[in-house]
Amino acid sequence: MKKTATLLVSCPDKKGIIQAVTKFLLSHNANILHANQHLDTENNLFLMRLEWDVADFSLCENEFHSNFEEVAKKYGMDWRLKSNQIKNRVAIMVSHYDHCLADLLHKHKNGDLDCEISVVLSNHKNAEELVNFYEIPFHYIKVTKENKEKAEQKQNEILNRLDIDLIVLARYMQILSPDFIRRYPEKIINIHHSFLPAFIGAKPYHRAYERGVKLIGATSHYVTEELDGGPIIEQDIARVSHRDQITDLTRKGRDLERVVLSRAIRRHIENRILIYANKTVVFK
Amino acid sequence: MKKTATLLVSCPDKKGIIQAVTKFLLSHNANILHANQHLDTENNLFLMRLEWDVADFSLCENEFHSNFEEVAKKYGMDWRLKSNQIKNRVAIMVSHYDHCLADLLHKHKNGDLDCEISVVLSNHKNAEELVNFYEIPFHYIKVTKENKEKAEQKQNEILNRLDIDLIVLARYMQILSPDFIRRYPEKIINIHHSFLPAFIGAKPYHRAYERGVKLIGATSHYVTEELDGGPIIEQDIARVSHRDQITDLTRKGRDLERVVLSRAIRRHIENRILIYANKTVVFK
Amino acid sequence: MKKTATLLVSCPDKKGIIQAVTKFLLSHNANILHANQHLDTENNLFLMRLEWDVADFSLCENEFHSNFEEVAKKYGMDWRLKSNQIKNRVAIMVSHYDHCLADLLHKHKNGDLDCEISVVLSNHKNAEELVNFYEIPFHYIKVTKENKEKAEQKQNEILNRLDIDLIVLARYMQILSPDFIRRYPEKIINIHHSFLPAFIGAKPYHRAYERGVKLIGATSHYVTEELDGGPIIEQDIARVSHRDQITDLTRKGRDLERVVLSRAIRRHIENRILIYANKTVVFK
Amino acid sequence: MKKTATLLVSCPDKKGIIQAVTKFLLSHNANILHANQHLDTENNLFLMRLEWDVADFSLCENEFHSNFEEVAKKYGMDWRLKSNQIKNRVAIMVSHYDHCLADLLHKHKNGDLDCEISVVLSNHKNAEELVNFYEIPFHYIKVTKENKEKAEQKQNEILNRLDIDLIVLARYMQILSPDFIRRYPEKIINIHHSFLPAFIGAKPYHRAYERGVKLIGATSHYVTEELDGGPIIEQDIARVSHRDQITDLTRKGRDLERVVLSRAIRRHIENRILIYANKTVVFK
Repeated sequence: MKKTATLLVSCPDKKGIIQAVTKFLLSHNANILHANQHLDTENNLFLMRLEWDVADFSLCENEFHSNFEEVAKKYGMDWRLKSNQIKNRVAIMVSHYDHCLADLLHKHKNGDLDCEISVVLSNHKNAEELVNFYEIPFHYIKVTKENKEKAEQKQNEILNRLDIDLIVLARYMQILSPDFIRRYPEKIINIHHSFLPAFIGAKPYHRAYERGVKLIGATSHYVTEELDGGPIIEQDIARVSHRDQITDLTRKGRDLERVVLSRAIRRHIENRILIYANKTVVFK
Repeated sequence: MKKTATLLVSCPDKKGIIQAVTKFLLSHNANILHANQHLDTENNLFLMRLEWDVADFSLCENEFHSNFEEVAKKYGMDWRLKSNQIKNRVAIMVSHYDHCLADLLHKHKNGDLDCEISVVLSNHKNAEELVNFYEIPFHYIKVTKENKEKAEQKQNEILNRLDIDLIVLARYMQILSPDFIRRYPEKIINIHHSFLPAFIGAKPYHRAYERGVKLIGATSHYVTEELDGGPIIEQDIARVSHRDQITDLTRKGRDLERVVLSRAIRRHIENRILIYANKTVVFK
Repeated sequence: MKKTATLLVSCPDKKGIIQAVTKFLLSHNANILHANQHLDTENNLFLMRLEWDVADFSLCENEFHSNFEEVAKKYGMDWRLKSNQIKNRVAIMVSHYDHCLADLLHKHKNGDLDCEISVVLSNHKNAEELVNFYEIPFHYIKVTKENKEKAEQKQNEILNRLDIDLIVLARYMQILSPDFIRRYPEKIINIHHSFLPAFIGAKPYHRAYERGVKLIGATSHYVTEELDGGPIIEQDIARVSHRDQITDLTRKGRDLERVVLSRAIRRHIENRILIYANKTVVFK
Repeated sequence: MKKTATLLVSCPDKKGIIQAVTKFLLSHNANILHANQHLDTENNLFLMRLEWDVADFSLCENEFHSNFEEVAKKYGMDWRLKSNQIKNRVAIMVSHYDHCLADLLHKHKNGDLDCEISVVLSNHKNAEELVNFYEIPFHYIKVTKENKEKAEQKQNEILNRLDIDLIVLARYMQILSPDFIRRYPEKIINIHHSFLPAFIGAKPYHRAYERGVKLIGATSHYVTEELDGGPIIEQDIARVSHRDQITDLTRKGRDLERVVLSRAIRRHIENRILIYANKTVVFK
């Protein structure tokens, strides 16, 4: 795999932004591989993703920061640089249902998820052996109504110690506290088992069954303080019929959840996602 | 096309129902072409659709009614017979947007909708020429807040006079009164431009855009007094991205609406749908 | 889970078949849960699947065989009975790529595949630990041009000894000999990584890339002597674009293959599939 | 709608291309709305689409041509400029089946296809009234084995006289001569009723039925001298089952064909497509 860097930029739209950024990169001998830009005319917001080969690139990451600041300042840019040589450090949180976890662990081992899975945290013990098989640290942290604050403290300690970049809620069925969520802005990805905004909250398959829908869905989104209300990254659906009982919806849904969650994670770790106005721009 | 009859049956489940019905049909020399049964174990409800070749069948429709009553009574059946030789008489109601209408008219002419389109009612005039082109009667009935009751009276008169079996709301943007709806139970099919139950009510594409969904949908359902709350017949979705503005959602949605509405109508006129517990059983 | 039996029937169409079979079942006190029939008018072929609750059913499997023979003979039926209490004994054959295998093993453990996985055979060693983790016997059998016949003998011995009902080729990249295939008619299910009949044979993703398709697919089918030419059970597709390189097609394809293969296996082990004219009837 | 211009560029990859082009545009006061680039590393080919607001742009189209030549030469660019103020002049060719035609005419009238439909040519008369209704010129040109050359001459005369930019084969069932095709390179779009490369040539639905596929497809592609072998623009599929007879495949296929063809045309007239190596790059 080529060594590359990606730059995500957002700023108020003005003439000349693309030219300014590409000129900067060129002056440091970058060979641009992918360029992708989006303009939200409603909000006059310019958004861009650039990826370049760093083989001949003359700046190291620190130099980039100091040198690019001038351009960034001029246009009022928010920006984020990422080298594909430095893997995202990912923590997976999971409860009883381990189908997404098993899928992610296998994809990671296969090379389909280019990150480091640093730890798995669970409020159940059943996934421990599976996680051990993949030689990833597993921590069982019991969560009850009473100990929730303490449990989150323990989780936080581990996440901090491991310097986690991304938390994946792979069917983690506890609601995180606002405090917890605020520590990890745009860094927690959840899989919800409905096509949001339909069936927010608990038991979406039961409610889908009750409503008699002909499609079920799954949605991967960033977690914000509003339950199932954060920026949507990816969604997909499967067809169901009157023959499908709740167990069938649940089973069909598992295949959806696996696929939708892993797609969302890939896009995050490839530095493809910009967030604004509670929505995502996903550069493909 | 073969001359066939279809029978839809629902009743409390008991042993022997299939045997009883098929024995009855056989005794009158029916050649069964399709048999499809569903059991809702939760509600102990038996549901079935049978279709048979009437070439050798010894009963006319009236005779069927009197003869079958004994079987039906024994099992407490709700049942509905339909000959494919007697076309459903369909009225289409439409407002400004005529894309579903145009699609239905062309499909009908092509032979893809095996019904009679008896009339088109609109609170706008723009579709008149198109409807005339297809040689179908068109009535313009203005609807305002003030004249709504009178307008519905006029609509009712026409629908009654034409002995309409099915009313299709092909993007008819007026909310029908409970009175109107009660006259046509399980006989009004609507197309709603979202994947229900998401985005009930007005401006679903605007709200989908605002929420930043990655899929938009369309839903065809029977109309009940609860807004967008009736039994769902068919749904489908299309993928969207951050590049899609509201006009793009609307345009992509039009293709969805066309397809979803026409599928729902086909299933209704082929006598494939049973309704209970605010859900549909659609026999394919 | 309810104890049920399923009966699959095919025979030349005649009046009275449904009545005859349901009368037989009723006389032995079966409570029919699902009935599904299909008529191929072109070939005058009647096909049916019945599933009933065996709680009150008065016949054991042996008695069924002797008692039903009279009905079967009268109509010239091919038929197959299966109790959901007797699990299919499944062997999985796999080569280097283990993503389908990993998915099947996890689904099986989860209860999503209601069968017994009796053994995994591979011409590679890499999956051994994974299979061991799930506590399923693993046999490494090297296959080369020279030893192919001997290798198949070893495979056959194991399959015979374990009384295997179904062989799943979960990305097994060796072509089986006609001799081998003939031993297991309608008992070998393969996953091919294209939407057949496009891209039969080797390297379908490479050829899809070369052709510039906008969709890739996967197909699960019964294996016959004609390469990738057997009856299709299930297919699905994923969207690709010019941005997707062969590695992307391969990765996206893996998700397809997992889902398509496991769906096909489920339908087989639920006794839902009838085969004729090199096609499948899949009762849902 | 904003007045915009789009530029499509392809050339051997080198450092600095994006910078050079955006610098050029900036120097003439363009406000870039969309920028999209793709690099085919295998072929070392750089491809880009830029769209800018022309409100403040200081060059007219002729000036652009003379001024941009210097940049283009330096990098060996193939390039194509298109203003959205100058509509593509489109000819539709159609045979007996008019469902795609009817859909395109209605979409055009609705504003969903931003082009001029200059003429409809048909070797059948049945669509004449429909085309007249939409007030578009219709020419009936009979095509037989014997008169094919003459018929193509007549078609060519009309197409030349009207200065046609794009020819849409909306289920035109005659094979065009190599001579005809060579006159309109990358200017003829066809809809084929299969997921190519499966079922090339005649009667794809019949062959899909015979093969027992579980998905049918439609493909829109540029026409080259190789039958159904040109660069693919768009494909989509629909699910079918054993219940679907050839007439059902054909009917379901019609909805696919409508949608797939109109999507492909939109992308062409929005100047989003680059072709190389018999494949398309479709910038979205």
